[in-house]
Amino acid sequence: MSDNIHRALPHVLHLKRLGVDTYQEPVIYMRSDCHVCRAEGFESQSRVQVAHNNVVIIATLNVVTGEFLAPEEVGLSEAAWRLIGAHEGDAVILSHPPILESLGLVRDKAYGKRLSDADMRAIVRDITAGRYADIQLSAFITACTGNRLDLAETAALTRAMIDTGERLVWEREQVVDKHCVGGLPGNRTTLIVVPIVAAFGLTMPKTSSRAITSPAGTADVMETLANVELDVSGMRRVVEREGGCIVWGGSVRLSPADDIIIRVERPLNLDSEGQLVASVLSKKAAAGSSHVVIDIPVGETAKIRSRETAQSLSHRLVEIGRIVGLTVRTMVTDGAQPVGRGIGPALEARDVLAVLRREAGAPTDLRERALRLAGAVLEFAPEVAAGEGTRLARDILDDGRAWKKFEAICTAQGGLRDPPVAAHTHVVTATQCGRVTTIDNRRLARVAKLAGAPRAPAAGLELHVPLGAKVESGMPLFTVHAEAPGELAYALDYIAAQPEIVHMEVRS
Amino acid sequence: MSDNIHRALPHVLHLKRLGVDTYQEPVIYMRSDCHVCRAEGFESQSRVQVAHNNVVIIATLNVVTGEFLAPEEVGLSEAAWRLIGAHEGDAVILSHPPILESLGLVRDKAYGKRLSDADMRAIVRDITAGRYADIQLSAFITACTGNRLDLAETAALTRAMIDTGERLVWEREQVVDKHCVGGLPGNRTTLIVVPIVAAFGLTMPKTSSRAITSPAGTADVMETLANVELDVSGMRRVVEREGGCIVWGGSVRLSPADDIIIRVERPLNLDSEGQLVASVLSKKAAAGSSHVVIDIPVGETAKIRSRETAQSLSHRLVEIGRIVGLTVRTMVTDGAQPVGRGIGPALEARDVLAVLRREAGAPTDLRERALRLAGAVLEFAPEVAAGEGTRLARDILDDGRAWKKFEAICTAQGGLRDPPVAAHTHVVTATQCGRVTTIDNRRLARVAKLAGAPRAPAAGLELHVPLGAKVESGMPLFTVHAEAPGELAYALDYIAAQPEIVHMEVRS
Repeated sequence: MSDNIHRALPHVLHLKRLGVDTYQEPVIYMRSDCHVCRAEGFESQSRVQVAHNNVVIIATLNVVTGEFLAPEEVGLSEAAWRLIGAHEGDAVILSHPPILESLGLVRDKAYGKRLSDADMRAIVRDITAGRYADIQLSAFITACTGNRLDLAETAALTRAMIDTGERLVWEREQVVDKHCVGGLPGNRTTLIVVPIVAAFGLTMPKTSSRAITSPAGTADVMETLANVELDVSGMRRVVEREGGCIVWGGSVRLSPADDIIIRVERPLNLDSEGQLVASVLSKKAAAGSSHVVIDIPVGETAKIRSRETAQSLSHRLVEIGRIVGLTVRTMVTDGAQPVGRGIGPALEARDVLAVLRREAGAPTDLRERALRLAGAVLEFAPEVAAGEGTRLARDILDDGRAWKKFEAICTAQGGLRDPPVAAHTHVVTATQCGRVTTIDNRRLARVAKLAGAPRAPAAGLELHVPLGAKVESGMPLFTVHAEAPGELAYALDYIAAQPEIVHMEVRS
Repeated sequence: MSDNIHRALPHVLHLKRLGVDTYQEPVIYMRSDCHVCRAEGFESQSRVQVAHNNVVIIATLNVVTGEFLAPEEVGLSEAAWRLIGAHEGDAVILSHPPILESLGLVRDKAYGKRLSDADMRAIVRDITAGRYADIQLSAFITACTGNRLDLAETAALTRAMIDTGERLVWEREQVVDKHCVGGLPGNRTTLIVVPIVAAFGLTMPKTSSRAITSPAGTADVMETLANVELDVSGMRRVVEREGGCIVWGGSVRLSPADDIIIRVERPLNLDSEGQLVASVLSKKAAAGSSHVVIDIPVGETAKIRSRETAQSLSHRLVEIGRIVGLTVRTMVTDGAQPVGRGIGPALEARDVLAVLRREAGAPTDLRERALRLAGAVLEFAPEVAAGEGTRLARDILDDGRAWKKFEAICTAQGGLRDPPVAAHTHVVTATQCGRVTTIDNRRLARVAKLAGAPRAPAAGLELHVPLGAKVESGMPLFTVHAEAPGELAYALDYIAAQPEIVHMEVRS
């Protein structure tokens, strides 16, 4: 064929800051009558390549006919503005992006084909570079849901995620970690395990996530007590000094593809086994861990509902761990009811503080879970005999070393602070007497989310009655906390329509 | 539980037109410091219910910190503005939307569960009401891709789509239709079949779609010749007068859920068997058809690549047709190469005109395909014997009745017009001599789309060499047409990187 080809010319426009927050999707605003739209044939939903100094991103176009942009101006969503490090009036070069070939692989996956290592690398590389629009991320997530990734594909996804981010190297034989697959409200053991393990002398550079589909992630809870947005050098400084840290994984940019995928998973409320394994293990490997304990709570209304699912997940975590070079030990635990009393960032932080400070009313269930997990981590140390870990952990908590270490870690992360208190609360009371037989974790989590958690850190709920408790009519069942009256009303509307969140059997 | 519950209060803000085109997703722009955001805890990506007079929609929130909105003002994307029939300064009532329960069913489907009739109705009802965000639509589409809908689920989806839109009733025993499942560029037989069938005296109220993943849909092609955006009463007037019409299905709002799904399918480039069947048959049933011929072109680079896939699709179309009360006859046809010469709205319209006007150089392949299909439709008439249809169709085309009827239909739809001509063209020539052995339909379609089709109606390409043609070096292979120079350059860049679009074997 002829190679007498005209090349596409670059087009320049100047940036105007509009201050539109599209969450994290990069969006570009251009006038429909600007010379670039006309020459390039751009229209709304077109993907546009935006180059600024040495940074190139791809944004989704919203064409503007209003007056707030001049024809030579271009606007960016706040996410896009930050990504390219823009300043008012800067020139940007606009063009058609290269064709996204990896999208064909996502289509293949949707049609049931297996993806190879190279396929996964291509997809994850494009996701990390911000080349996927949100609907394309949604298609990838959905195509991988429901056990549609086999072991080899999960390993490929995990490796691809590790390879696209930074990877920390610690000059130590052994770097330990723990993780909970989630789904159990209030299960905030990390904030207790890290100081116990670090006080013992092991190295535990913990990166935690923010909530995906739950009312609080560990990073959200820790953030009510100390800064969690440390960069890699900040994290390294804390760990060198204290042996452990609890920071948000997103700001250290380990496995950045995972952070991008999570922002679409959250509103979809989808979190499949393959992606869960890849997400967890890629973060651990990238953080430089060598030995990891993974808590898998099982309960009818927890994320994992059956022993069989837990066993399958456990098997996959251990196997994929082996493939990517991690020693993984799983613990299947009881997930029948929330842990502790609080659900929501600040309310869960209060439970953690009570345990660490050995207060009289501290929740025993949270304490005991944390001790078992800390024990399992301690048993990775060659000098700790099997079966001795939990006793050792209990000593470190009971003699105050864990609390002292937690304070030191918070200080190293910028200072310990008091968790915020909600301005609006409402006590939900029992309308009959009886014994509590089941607690619906999912609906309780929904209430906490409707009340504003995790975005509103003080929001959530406090549960006053554990399983088996005897309740008299008029006694408090739980208290809803909210920062805004609209959110409180919204949560209460939901409760009114769901009378069985705390199920009681009437005494006969 | 206590029913001492505070109800969420309505919040009022006033509309300002921003003129932002987000394609069709409803987006709402509110200042982060407005009283509604603060009271309701809304943040970017929140789904917000917007009520205006009697219309209620749900929009995705983009929080704005810029100066282009006052604190008491609220902006809407153009799609949302049109949906609620807004005027500058109108008051709107904003609140949290009800929880989207049907999203749990989409999640179930992603995890492999079967959906019942009631499940599909719930999903389609929420989609039709605009309650799904684009990423949620994307998840539904992906979860149904790759034959993940069985026969019963496909029937349920089809019925749900029929039931959520208008349904036309024609006072006739028999209402005929034809459809092509697509994937073959230039296969624009509808514009020839309708006038033949209507000239014979059958009733054929044809609603066509715009392109989903192709460079032109039938509605896009017809639009270059006449108005296709008729409402139901306009369509009825044309059909009563002429016996047939060719209008865009979207503007008559038959199966509106399908139109919403298609706008996300297009950028995803996903179009699964179950959704294809539901989309086609729901449109036919809603249009009031009783008898339908469906063209299934098969070719290595057509949408349907194998006889087996075609047979499976054919079986499903006939079966689901039977369940929803349609007599369906399928024709599996040759899809090895594009039909006619043009690819793109105006270029395909020119081929159609040449056939109808019986011009000397009219493309024979397009003519013969149209005659076979028209023949199959005519054989639905009790007075036409099996095997007689094609001969009858040929007579009606050859004696000018079809062209006269086409002119009459265009006049009834507002007047026949000349298709537009592209300002920019480029001839791609052969760099060697040989015989054309394969033509890559997918890549040709890609070239036409990069050149601007179907949005730019004059854009696309003209193919100069059919399969088997002998080509000398320097001879034209195809001509690219574009309305904008940037699009021409973009298409040519792609061609330069894909030298095998028209594959030739060198003569030995």
